[in-house]
Amino acid sequence: MQTFSVSPEGEKFPLPTDEDYQKEFRRLQDLADRHRQMGQEIVVVLGMGFVGAVMAAVIADSTDDSGKPGKFVIGMQRPSTRSYWKIPLIQRGIAPMKAEDPEVEKIIHRCVVEKESLTASYTYQALTLADVVVVDVQCDYIKESLNNVSTGYVQMEDLEKALEITGELIPSNALVLIETTVPPGTTEQVAYPLVKKAFKKRGITSEPLLAHSYERVMPGKDYVSSIRNFWRVCSGVNSESRERVIKFLTEVLDTKNFPLTVLERPIESETAKIVENSFRASILAFLNEWSLFAERNGVDLVKVIQAIKVRPTHSNIIFPGPGIGGYCLPKDGGLAVWAYKHLLGFEDDLFKITPAAININDTRALHVPELARDALRNMGKYIAASKVTILGASYREDVGDTRYSGSEVIIRRLVEMGAEICVYDPYVDHWWEFEAQETYPTPGKSRGRFFRSQKKLSEMRMEPDLDTALADADVVIFAVRHKQFLNLPPADVVKAAGGPLAVIDCFGILDDEKIKEYFQLGCEVKGLGRGHINRLKKQYKR
Amino acid sequence: MQTFSVSPEGEKFPLPTDEDYQKEFRRLQDLADRHRQMGQEIVVVLGMGFVGAVMAAVIADSTDDSGKPGKFVIGMQRPSTRSYWKIPLIQRGIAPMKAEDPEVEKIIHRCVVEKESLTASYTYQALTLADVVVVDVQCDYIKESLNNVSTGYVQMEDLEKALEITGELIPSNALVLIETTVPPGTTEQVAYPLVKKAFKKRGITSEPLLAHSYERVMPGKDYVSSIRNFWRVCSGVNSESRERVIKFLTEVLDTKNFPLTVLERPIESETAKIVENSFRASILAFLNEWSLFAERNGVDLVKVIQAIKVRPTHSNIIFPGPGIGGYCLPKDGGLAVWAYKHLLGFEDDLFKITPAAININDTRALHVPELARDALRNMGKYIAASKVTILGASYREDVGDTRYSGSEVIIRRLVEMGAEICVYDPYVDHWWEFEAQETYPTPGKSRGRFFRSQKKLSEMRMEPDLDTALADADVVIFAVRHKQFLNLPPADVVKAAGGPLAVIDCFGILDDEKIKEYFQLGCEVKGLGRGHINRLKKQYKR
Repeated sequence: MQTFSVSPEGEKFPLPTDEDYQKEFRRLQDLADRHRQMGQEIVVVLGMGFVGAVMAAVIADSTDDSGKPGKFVIGMQRPSTRSYWKIPLIQRGIAPMKAEDPEVEKIIHRCVVEKESLTASYTYQALTLADVVVVDVQCDYIKESLNNVSTGYVQMEDLEKALEITGELIPSNALVLIETTVPPGTTEQVAYPLVKKAFKKRGITSEPLLAHSYERVMPGKDYVSSIRNFWRVCSGVNSESRERVIKFLTEVLDTKNFPLTVLERPIESETAKIVENSFRASILAFLNEWSLFAERNGVDLVKVIQAIKVRPTHSNIIFPGPGIGGYCLPKDGGLAVWAYKHLLGFEDDLFKITPAAININDTRALHVPELARDALRNMGKYIAASKVTILGASYREDVGDTRYSGSEVIIRRLVEMGAEICVYDPYVDHWWEFEAQETYPTPGKSRGRFFRSQKKLSEMRMEPDLDTALADADVVIFAVRHKQFLNLPPADVVKAAGGPLAVIDCFGILDDEKIKEYFQLGCEVKGLGRGHINRLKKQYKR
Repeated sequence: MQTFSVSPEGEKFPLPTDEDYQKEFRRLQDLADRHRQMGQEIVVVLGMGFVGAVMAAVIADSTDDSGKPGKFVIGMQRPSTRSYWKIPLIQRGIAPMKAEDPEVEKIIHRCVVEKESLTASYTYQALTLADVVVVDVQCDYIKESLNNVSTGYVQMEDLEKALEITGELIPSNALVLIETTVPPGTTEQVAYPLVKKAFKKRGITSEPLLAHSYERVMPGKDYVSSIRNFWRVCSGVNSESRERVIKFLTEVLDTKNFPLTVLERPIESETAKIVENSFRASILAFLNEWSLFAERNGVDLVKVIQAIKVRPTHSNIIFPGPGIGGYCLPKDGGLAVWAYKHLLGFEDDLFKITPAAININDTRALHVPELARDALRNMGKYIAASKVTILGASYREDVGDTRYSGSEVIIRRLVEMGAEICVYDPYVDHWWEFEAQETYPTPGKSRGRFFRSQKKLSEMRMEPDLDTALADADVVIFAVRHKQFLNLPPADVVKAAGGPLAVIDCFGILDDEKIKEYFQLGCEVKGLGRGHINRLKKQYKR
């Protein structure tokens, strides 16, 4: 039995013992007492993931009207072998995730070490001390296939467990704010019964104070700001919880510049979050058919989108990269399709565009290996045993977040087809989806199971040097719009590769001038949605 | 044989005779000579429809850098019984359509009567005088069913005929600018061969100068401005036509404040137009499933959309009214689905979201009679023989444009169900879709053929007085967000109806306060996407 939790940097932390738990709770009691005497509220944040850890710090960093800290925050994380390491790291003032926003490291250090307004803990007993509980426990959607999101299911056990324990431990007048993106209906039809039942067992007759509010966090250089300085939507199961959540969010976020939207029932704010992300996913999926249309008919979709974006009412039309990744867009619609049946009790297939959009986005990346195959064929080569260099592993430009990235799917298919893979991404050290599945991340997050032969993936290289990554490449795939890739001179790429190669542009990364240069250098070029490339080929191919 | 053309106001105009044609052409020759001597270019605009007539006036109203008129415009319209009346009307300085923008009447009067820079004619011989031809001939998409746009077809004969005659008559160096929304590929694969062949017959060996540019006209109070002061996209079949179209549009539109986007090939700008409108149609269709979800689960979609709109990246999310109307959104995607097969030669079903969006939008209105039926049932009444008052016939707020309006479909279904209909719309005098199909509009535009018993529709009343329209109504349907309807006091509506009635809100027209008042007055209320109404009913129903 493993009794250590290993951090991404490889540091081993022994899991807490029974004795540790008692000491830890006394520590928290002392802290809570002290801060309560200073007139502060005790906030417990459950779940130290991408959102929870930063939300905890934002709350701990907030001040009241007189400029004094108004909250003391306990960031709580279950001591599993997979996640326990976050607790001792935060306790040192170190952020439990890598982020492109330097403020993430700073705010956690500031709150833990300087202000001492934030502490991390592994014991649920912290809940007994809470005035407010913020729930940031993950609620995943697990797909059963790559092209039929509706057959998947919601993995809600961790969230249910957390809510049950919350009901067993919190003071009866504590506000429980669910911040996780959940299937619509969860706050009222899952959380409320769990907490109500636990209250009943404890002889508490008052109504649980449950609220829902969703964040709109965006990985990247404005990570912290996207939590604190951005519009929020909230709701509560009754008027008291609604008033409490408005008060709480007003105290910890910049609601002056970014006013709250208050909806009446939690199902309304839960639904708003899903509609918001499904809206984005649908816009992107809509463009997939136009991307293929463009490729087949001499149209450059990149320029068409630029032409359309000019209209203020159409300014959010965006080029769909090689599959739509990130944690939210690929799953949120699935939560609603599932909830409509399993929480809300309908049996008809109401949802059409929402799940179709996810299926289209999930499989869009599979067209990239097709383009690589065709480009190689034009050079008299085959994908099998060819060296393919992938530029970009993350799901978005200039971040290191690899969750559900298009590159993962491109690579898994290329490996099936027999290619040799080398990956370069300046933002990514670990590509968790290709590492040991038992530790990090959860199995549901890897899409290896949808492909033949997962073992070969362990042979894949993450190469920290671009020239080395390109050496002897038969194909280079521009997969992500990282700044570094936008201005890469074609001559340098060809030189690093040691000769002409196939060049695949997945994201409108190459302008016409560069495409022309690649052709003049003897390369083959193809691109998602870029049907005009054949015209350029006729004009410029050596 | 009919030899008159009747205007919407009922004035009869005899069609021109052979003798008239000769005189008319001499008139145009004299005008052209005179204006050419003044250093002006001769522009012939083909098609005096919604776009063509105003575009002709905008060109005629334009001035060169020294402030002098640079163009003389001949607006040409085929002398069919259905359309000939436009010519004599324009010649009097009267706009051939009703518009909410007073500038439409003014600009046509100014150019025809004051500046004398615009004349209208019925003879194609005008083309022999052209430096530039602007083609605004309609290209319709005819559906074969209400819920399967892909089985429809493009009605291109008029456009083809116009292009053929253009090739036969224009000077070889005239620029032909196609402005009609056409199936992608039309300029290069339909227009080019037609003109080229005509040129060949005439012994002209030079390449035809064909260009494509699309307008983004918006019915309403800024009609003229939406043609002149808005961004344009253009393209040409070769570099000379591209340069010519850039020069022409720069001379006649405000390209200083609204810069041109130049795309290389016409298929790129033709595609951009369709993507642009299909994008909008898809966003609206996406919301239909969420509208039904909202209704069934206590969610007010109006508030959810307001919550989401706050995000700048989501500001174009809009509540889908009762079906998505107007001339463009219901058909443009169909043009592309058709072109992909019939012009571009593909047999696969590439398009998924684009046609699905049109089908969803075309049938969304059919849910409104369901709501009316259910609301009546709650009052112990039946839809058959009930009087239903529809507030709003147009497709958009504060305009009188009824093309493909949701109200048409609502009414046709209600008539099938046996209801008695009364319509009130302060902007609509004629509801063409319900009038004689042989004259105006073209048969393809009416959706009567998708419904049982079209005859009954002639019994429908357009009532110019609101109170009279509401008298004895069993149901009132708020169908369009006309300003007048937004603040209608519930007490006044109930009083006009003579007692409590069923109230159906199709467009988020009633705020919660009004819904509450209707309930307090004993009414039944239901609304598209407004699931929270049941909560209000429990609280306030008398």
